[in-house]
Amino acid sequence: MTTPLKISVAGLGTVGQGVLKLLNEQAELIERRCGRGIRVSAVSARDKSKERGVSLDGLDFYEDAAAMAAQADCDVIVELIGGSDGIAKKTVEAAIGASRHVVTANKALIAHHGGDLATKAEQAGVSLCFEAAVAGGIPIIKALKEGLSGNTITSIHGILNGTGNYILSRMRDEGLEFDEVLKDAQRLGYAEADPGFDIDGVDAAHKLAILASLAFGRRVDFASVHIEGIRHISQMDIRFAEELGYRIKLLGIASENDKGIEQRVHPCLVPADAQIAGVEGVFNAIFVEGDFVGSLMMEGRGAGERPTASAVCADLMDIARGITAPAFGVRSDDLKPANTVSMDHHRGGYYIRLMVLDRPGIFADIATVLRDWEVSMKTILQHAHAPGEAVPVVLTLHETGESSALGVIKTISGFDGVLETPVMIRIENL
Amino acid sequence: MTTPLKISVAGLGTVGQGVLKLLNEQAELIERRCGRGIRVSAVSARDKSKERGVSLDGLDFYEDAAAMAAQADCDVIVELIGGSDGIAKKTVEAAIGASRHVVTANKALIAHHGGDLATKAEQAGVSLCFEAAVAGGIPIIKALKEGLSGNTITSIHGILNGTGNYILSRMRDEGLEFDEVLKDAQRLGYAEADPGFDIDGVDAAHKLAILASLAFGRRVDFASVHIEGIRHISQMDIRFAEELGYRIKLLGIASENDKGIEQRVHPCLVPADAQIAGVEGVFNAIFVEGDFVGSLMMEGRGAGERPTASAVCADLMDIARGITAPAFGVRSDDLKPANTVSMDHHRGGYYIRLMVLDRPGIFADIATVLRDWEVSMKTILQHAHAPGEAVPVVLTLHETGESSALGVIKTISGFDGVLETPVMIRIENL
Repeated sequence: MTTPLKISVAGLGTVGQGVLKLLNEQAELIERRCGRGIRVSAVSARDKSKERGVSLDGLDFYEDAAAMAAQADCDVIVELIGGSDGIAKKTVEAAIGASRHVVTANKALIAHHGGDLATKAEQAGVSLCFEAAVAGGIPIIKALKEGLSGNTITSIHGILNGTGNYILSRMRDEGLEFDEVLKDAQRLGYAEADPGFDIDGVDAAHKLAILASLAFGRRVDFASVHIEGIRHISQMDIRFAEELGYRIKLLGIASENDKGIEQRVHPCLVPADAQIAGVEGVFNAIFVEGDFVGSLMMEGRGAGERPTASAVCADLMDIARGITAPAFGVRSDDLKPANTVSMDHHRGGYYIRLMVLDRPGIFADIATVLRDWEVSMKTILQHAHAPGEAVPVVLTLHETGESSALGVIKTISGFDGVLETPVMIRIENL
Repeated sequence: MTTPLKISVAGLGTVGQGVLKLLNEQAELIERRCGRGIRVSAVSARDKSKERGVSLDGLDFYEDAAAMAAQADCDVIVELIGGSDGIAKKTVEAAIGASRHVVTANKALIAHHGGDLATKAEQAGVSLCFEAAVAGGIPIIKALKEGLSGNTITSIHGILNGTGNYILSRMRDEGLEFDEVLKDAQRLGYAEADPGFDIDGVDAAHKLAILASLAFGRRVDFASVHIEGIRHISQMDIRFAEELGYRIKLLGIASENDKGIEQRVHPCLVPADAQIAGVEGVFNAIFVEGDFVGSLMMEGRGAGERPTASAVCADLMDIARGITAPAFGVRSDDLKPANTVSMDHHRGGYYIRLMVLDRPGIFADIATVLRDWEVSMKTILQHAHAPGEAVPVVLTLHETGESSALGVIKTISGFDGVLETPVMIRIENL
């Protein structure tokens, strides 16, 4: 029997506890599959005495994760602290500096510093693995790096944030407004007390930037991801979408064309009968288009103690077996520059909802604006209303340029009788 | 730059041509991702002069694939001949005998001889890879061996044969009978001239046996897979299924419980709103349940030149990168015996269609049989009919044992007034 792989775990929150449980429960299976065991030698957390449902007996305990990364007797540091900078980054850098492999679930860290960390890991001759950083238990990182490695990937899109999807699913199912569902999600533990990363699209953008780097062989470029969240989605928009044959989903979309890479996270109207429209609740789903494989879809639990532990342990078992591939699928030196194109270059369909005080001539004015911007309207919806009340008017536009769509909206929002800022949601005919 | 990986390709049919095209078109990408190129040194086929749309210039040509496997100047033999025995098996054995890695798309070979070949490959210190043998471009083998390796898999099921699914999809969409759709599928090239492997469930069973071995860490046991095809599925059953809220799909299902492994391929009624019911046409979909990851689903093109080439090349790129894992995820010696339980132990729901000449008392007789076998009926359907004509009567049974269901059917089929052999389709509430 070969010697066991020795690991240290930094961070004993939900995922850290899940990893310790998995390594304990599946010890026999891991040894059979890897030909060697995986043994935890040290852990670090802020509070040693906290009740966690896992025993820390016999493990070296560190309060300082970076110190553990530099000093502990181990081959791998598992970083489960989170956050793009601070102690998480220090810990990973200390681990690489001490020539230890790194396994992390930290999407923010990889989205912000993945390129540099990959270079450092290569120079040190160690692995930098982050399967758990994207889409929980779904082995999408491995699929892009290895399973689909013979393909030129042309696009990748998906539901990358379970909390956002859960909120939109419940708004549609139960007819509730955003704030009500968010509060309930927080009560049930599906949303954080500070929900911004999830509902403002930042978490999905972290994951999208990582996927785009892997898919297109380019340096991670989180700073250029176009990000919009779902706070402004109302029950009214969900109903109008339904009437038009669509559902509203928060998607991450990355594609490559001759101008460069589009990377965007925003709510979308997707056809109600599209497969992605049926992905509900806390599930994640990722759709990849490759030039040989065609369309491939993977769906599963995108977060949570056990699915995330599954991904962390797959990385650990790869290291135990000696399976290594560069962090982003190609050596850092071979990653092309990011070359993200701005949203001004985006073309697509648009849903626009105005709140209008009925006045003669408003539709003629709208029609004039569309003509001036050379934008073609697909549908217009207005329901019965009482005189003098503001009523919603919904336009959908055929494929047009982003700047034209925004120009139309800006002009219309200045009209006499248009109350509130118009709501704009992009249409994706996936 | 490291020296290129040298490969020889045995079999230049659709998949072989796809592999040559991919290696040619993606040469730069492969070199970037693997840090070395993949170069074809030799090929074998029955007829050298046949027009294939790919150039064989500069390649050593062998008429005898096994001779090539033993003699060609290469590191890897890619076996794309097909068939469980004969020249395909000789070629793979010759390759292993000459200490060359093997990449194959041959599901029949692996389903019949995978255990022995894996042992031989281990003894020779070479890889035996067969990502392309199951579900075309979907990287399910890698997912089970590596991406989900920290999980105990409890069940796996899916649509594993695109031809069968295509035929059932078109029967439902177009209201056509099986024979009509099969003929058209053959004309369009979606079904073979000899369609038996596809429509009788054998091809799906080959794939299921391979997946079950990987999922449960047991030796491949194709011989014990329970196999039924779709030749007996009629338009009438598709309509009745629809009326009951189901669709008919040909599924492969493997699960493990304390009695052993169930492995079965047969048509199933699945709820019309289940995700698997929406997988249409030539697509494959595989659902895995793991104790940590939960439910995971992968869907993509299950066959064809380019998706299959994608899978073959992923295996080649793994070898080029030095990524190796045992053929079935654990060393051959550590594979447990198969322990497949017979269908007599199966429990589930059943759909039974009888053709009945109306006579007083027949429903009372059916009710008596169900009572005697202690089987509980869920629904009974009979539509209006002309006197003296045979009419279909459809029963669905609540969960019961296979032997009870078959006992009920056997007894009823002996009744006076029951014409034809009853149709039985199992119900899976997936």
